Amino acid sequence: MNMAEQGKQFGPEYVRAISPYVAGKPISEVAREFGLVESTIVKLASNENPLGMPESARTAIAAAVADLGRYPDANGFALKGALSARFDVPPDWLTLGNGSNDILEIAAHALVKPGESIVYAEHSFAVYALATQEVGARAIEVKARDYGHDLDAMAVAIAPDTRLVFIANPNNPTGTFLPAAEIETFLAKVPADVVVVLDEAYNEYLDDAQQYDSIAWVRKYPNLLVSRTFSKAYGLAGLRIGYAVAQPALTDLLNRIRQPFNVNSLAQAAAVAALGDAAFLQRSAELNRAGKAQLVAAFDRLGLQYVPSSGNFVLVRVGRDDGAGARVNLALLKQGVIVRPVGNYNLPQWLRITIGLPEENAAFIAALEKALK
Amino acid sequence: MNMAEQGKQFGPEYVRAISPYVAGKPISEVAREFGLVESTIVKLASNENPLGMPESARTAIAAAVADLGRYPDANGFALKGALSARFDVPPDWLTLGNGSNDILEIAAHALVKPGESIVYAEHSFAVYALATQEVGARAIEVKARDYGHDLDAMAVAIAPDTRLVFIANPNNPTGTFLPAAEIETFLAKVPADVVVVLDEAYNEYLDDAQQYDSIAWVRKYPNLLVSRTFSKAYGLAGLRIGYAVAQPALTDLLNRIRQPFNVNSLAQAAAVAALGDAAFLQRSAELNRAGKAQLVAAFDRLGLQYVPSSGNFVLVRVGRDDGAGARVNLALLKQGVIVRPVGNYNLPQWLRITIGLPEENAAFIAALEKALK
Repeated sequence: MNMAEQGKQFGPEYVRAISPYVAGKPISEVAREFGLVESTIVKLASNENPLGMPESARTAIAAAVADLGRYPDANGFALKGALSARFDVPPDWLTLGNGSNDILEIAAHALVKPGESIVYAEHSFAVYALATQEVGARAIEVKARDYGHDLDAMAVAIAPDTRLVFIANPNNPTGTFLPAAEIETFLAKVPADVVVVLDEAYNEYLDDAQQYDSIAWVRKYPNLLVSRTFSKAYGLAGLRIGYAVAQPALTDLLNRIRQPFNVNSLAQAAAVAALGDAAFLQRSAELNRAGKAQLVAAFDRLGLQYVPSSGNFVLVRVGRDDGAGARVNLALLKQGVIVRPVGNYNLPQWLRITIGLPEENAAFIAALEKALK
Repeated sequence: MNMAEQGKQFGPEYVRAISPYVAGKPISEVAREFGLVESTIVKLASNENPLGMPESARTAIAAAVADLGRYPDANGFALKGALSARFDVPPDWLTLGNGSNDILEIAAHALVKPGESIVYAEHSFAVYALATQEVGARAIEVKARDYGHDLDAMAVAIAPDTRLVFIANPNNPTGTFLPAAEIETFLAKVPADVVVVLDEAYNEYLDDAQQYDSIAWVRKYPNLLVSRTFSKAYGLAGLRIGYAVAQPALTDLLNRIRQPFNVNSLAQAAAVAALGDAAFLQRSAELNRAGKAQLVAAFDRLGLQYVPSSGNFVLVRVGRDDGAGARVNLALLKQGVIVRPVGNYNLPQWLRITIGLPEENAAFIAALEKALK
């Protein structure tokens, strides 16, 4: 019996059909694979903060290391306290996740049975499709409009058996942004028994003019969950920590599915520190703004189409044939530059470039020019 | 509309029926609740290693902190390499979990649909029941024999729709041990399309005479998954890291459900160090043996029934009425001693005491004597 046949003995058919998430290649793996020196590799593949972890979080971790033989606080007392003060919501409106990936999967498991449906947009974050497959739900993928969500079409697509809608703002991997008014109109149309997950993983990168108060919507709508992360602007991707804000009835349901010790002790301590570190967040946003201008100027100069981005990455079209993304990606890897191919998002002519430090962006641009020749 | 009614709008009925896991009270919470000073509190509630994290892991963490702005390695290259060498199995036989709790839930989600059944023993680890409820499966709970698993009855209890069997060896919270021969006989009886999860969270505390080679069974049975953790003897509970060993077809299925970045970077680095730290493991086992003798001698002296334990904890009967466990627990809490009531395990006359440092055990014994008066 070969491996595939053996595998068929176990598990529901919808689990066997899942294609696992493809993560950005780690630097160490690219070094091994292409015979490169790790320190010379530039990784712009996973929308990480190029500044790394804030110093404030590093200090908090050092203080918390003494106690790692103990289980984490299953109720996240300190971090929920800090988030509660920040958003002016009671602690029982908060759910902590092992990254916001965990929040997205908890929502699917808590809310959707096999055979029911989940609505999300074409070219939106891969975990929506994965979470849908994991619970054996039917995916209703709504065609994108200008690479972003078509909220009117999404409202219409909601079926009688729809239990969950995923909205990303800004969206990953396209960087598109939905203005507050469009989301408000959409929320007013969603049936009260359908939960909307508003995934704001890149919220902290929004310009002042784009900012909106999604927590006010949570107060208004018992079926709205706002998801955020410390993995992007806060620079804590390696520690795994995200959170959800929702009214208590929905929050209570999420916490029935949440693994009791899903968030490790150091992540909780570091997140408290990072949440209070306004200076780091501002530096990160400024660096991102400058880096975005740097990338976009290069794409303009090279005559490459790109999607205007509200995140810490830019989606750029590197060719007009469906082999372009993979081809240019390989040429970049050989030069020690790791970016993200997005063929799995049905965007085979494009690459997603995380905005890095000025010198990393420059190294990418130089490598891209060579790769395009 | 009250909260409970609001909650009924969302989620499958089997999710709404879940009673969330009750974690051991954190020291900080007991201090707040009972007006005690944190440093005077003794916590013997969560089967943690009283030595805390090994120094080797602390050093590994310090080296890994620099890179926390990056996502963890989704494939766990270094840790799988170390485990692969230790157990002489290829890396594609290994699944990493956010604690072994994550492994148990991944197994349930990967293998069981709503309406199918899962077999486990009365008085066995609470997460088996939770994982069963989360996937909407039917629980087949098999009556315990002398507070441990009755494997003969469990084999008979397997139904045509059973997809998973949970076995804990040693079992938590009772500490009972199943000799290798009994497990081998059981494995030979289980149908090939039913997966057995052999949860060995406390394996490293077994006496030499009890040791057995469960990895050899994994080589023989494609439907066996052995689960282990770094939270107990290895002293890394706060970091969250566990793993599963199973043949590639089953492992592949688990990894379709596993969140790609489920294990944080520091946990991976610390686990590699701890796995190689034989001296720490030996010290932990010796300390545990001495502490177990200390507790058991006190229980004998006080005329209290206890279950002989193969773990790092002892289950002791503190009264002959069903209010006994809660009553004595409260009296202990007021004296600043945290242990684990096990009423939720249908053991309301009992308490589970984690084996601590000699002075912690002594403090507990003194407090227990007062509490029993």
